[in-house]
Amino acid sequence: MERNILLTIAYDGTDFCGWQRQPAVRTVQGVLEEALTKVCRTEIRLNGTSRTDAGVHALGQRASFKGDFGIPTDRLARAVNNLLSAAQTYRTKSSDVRILDAVEVDKGFHARFDSRGKRYRYVILNRPQADLFRRNYVYHVKEPLDVERMRAAAALIEGTHDFSCFQSSGGTPRETTVRTVYSLRVEPRDDGEIWIEIAGDGFLYNMVRIIAGTLTEVGLGRKSPADIPLILAEGRRQQAGHTAPAEGLYLVEVFYDNRNEREAAIHGKED
Amino acid sequence: MERNILLTIAYDGTDFCGWQRQPAVRTVQGVLEEALTKVCRTEIRLNGTSRTDAGVHALGQRASFKGDFGIPTDRLARAVNNLLSAAQTYRTKSSDVRILDAVEVDKGFHARFDSRGKRYRYVILNRPQADLFRRNYVYHVKEPLDVERMRAAAALIEGTHDFSCFQSSGGTPRETTVRTVYSLRVEPRDDGEIWIEIAGDGFLYNMVRIIAGTLTEVGLGRKSPADIPLILAEGRRQQAGHTAPAEGLYLVEVFYDNRNEREAAIHGKED
Repeated sequence: MERNILLTIAYDGTDFCGWQRQPAVRTVQGVLEEALTKVCRTEIRLNGTSRTDAGVHALGQRASFKGDFGIPTDRLARAVNNLLSAAQTYRTKSSDVRILDAVEVDKGFHARFDSRGKRYRYVILNRPQADLFRRNYVYHVKEPLDVERMRAAAALIEGTHDFSCFQSSGGTPRETTVRTVYSLRVEPRDDGEIWIEIAGDGFLYNMVRIIAGTLTEVGLGRKSPADIPLILAEGRRQQAGHTAPAEGLYLVEVFYDNRNEREAAIHGKED
Repeated sequence: MERNILLTIAYDGTDFCGWQRQPAVRTVQGVLEEALTKVCRTEIRLNGTSRTDAGVHALGQRASFKGDFGIPTDRLARAVNNLLSAAQTYRTKSSDVRILDAVEVDKGFHARFDSRGKRYRYVILNRPQADLFRRNYVYHVKEPLDVERMRAAAALIEGTHDFSCFQSSGGTPRETTVRTVYSLRVEPRDDGEIWIEIAGDGFLYNMVRIIAGTLTEVGLGRKSPADIPLILAEGRRQQAGHTAPAEGLYLVEVFYDNRNEREAAIHGKED
């Protein structure tokens, strides 16, 4: 009988050309579909929640797929992870993508359409010296950032706005560019790291990276928090800051309404 | 006029087939010699201090070379680093190898032959869950390690011994397998990391990784600190522990006697 499975996935985006399957290049969706197809012994196609770009990382990406196959849901993650690790070459002896969780959900559930929002983290390393070993995991900003200025700007970005100014061209066309940012926090961490944590009901193409770039320019004194309302009102990409690099961005989690989360949990236990 | 230059070098060993130049594969020596040859406009050959294996990292590798070239010594590092970064593909936008320092030393100085010893760090991640983002930078050990047992064993490895038992076959043949370990410390760190810090006058092939593997087995209770004197006395590789994986190993620094260090500093300032 056909099952509908919801996966929670983590990956290091460094060696992937992004999430979305493409011919001839290594993508997260492509690698996972190949492994799932072997494990399930039937062609699997994933519906991912977020089409992360090349170099972008994920701690809690979600994807769902339907299929009629033999392996129990609670053995899927281990089977796929073992297959992925076995496939590694020296330089990544352990796999750079892992299924953290697999649960059965009700037939009508869709990982992307039923998503109620997402949380991303953008990691800046703010100190004079770069870190050779973190070059693919943080955005290195040499000059000191003024966190209080960044927070003042962040407070003006929270809420419901037309975010056209924070959108790159080239994304999937949307009916509306109005989105709600539930929260946008700027938190200094150890070793010169600054984490920008943003949660919202949806994000336009490169929206988080442009917001991170804009907050960086505010922190450097090149823009003022007072510019934010004007940038939002005018809605012109050129007035916002630069697109911060992909390597600092992490998809942290995807939100679903309680009904689906609860059903997912119940179905998962039943298997 | 010919100069003799001493370089201090850091690299992430993940994408290198080790230090030593080899045909058709990417090595640290190969990448650096190619860049130095371009910058100096004359064929450069490096004498590296430590021939690190594939996957092994360095915070303070040293290498020297002689040449008659135009660029001032104090501009060498930046010129080479810029060239290396420019050569990067997407996945390593900033280079995975950097020259930290370049100083002129006296004609007779040789980075390897004049070395008085080295310090290595071996990093274990000791917790149930692996860290996807550190898979190439630590040795993940799931079962809890008993640090006090590891320290007791480490104390018995310090000092001057015949270290044949901690040597892999395949290394350069040595006149003697007697070495002096100045210090061997086992230090718990944050987030479940355990650092093994070892300093000595010289190390046999895979010696640090075999010591790390042996201390790990002691920490897991599979070997006892009391076994160490017997393992050293018998001198048989099979009695020591496994060779811990390359990705946990870092060459931290190379020691020189004060004369050379002082001269290096003086010459560096003169340029």
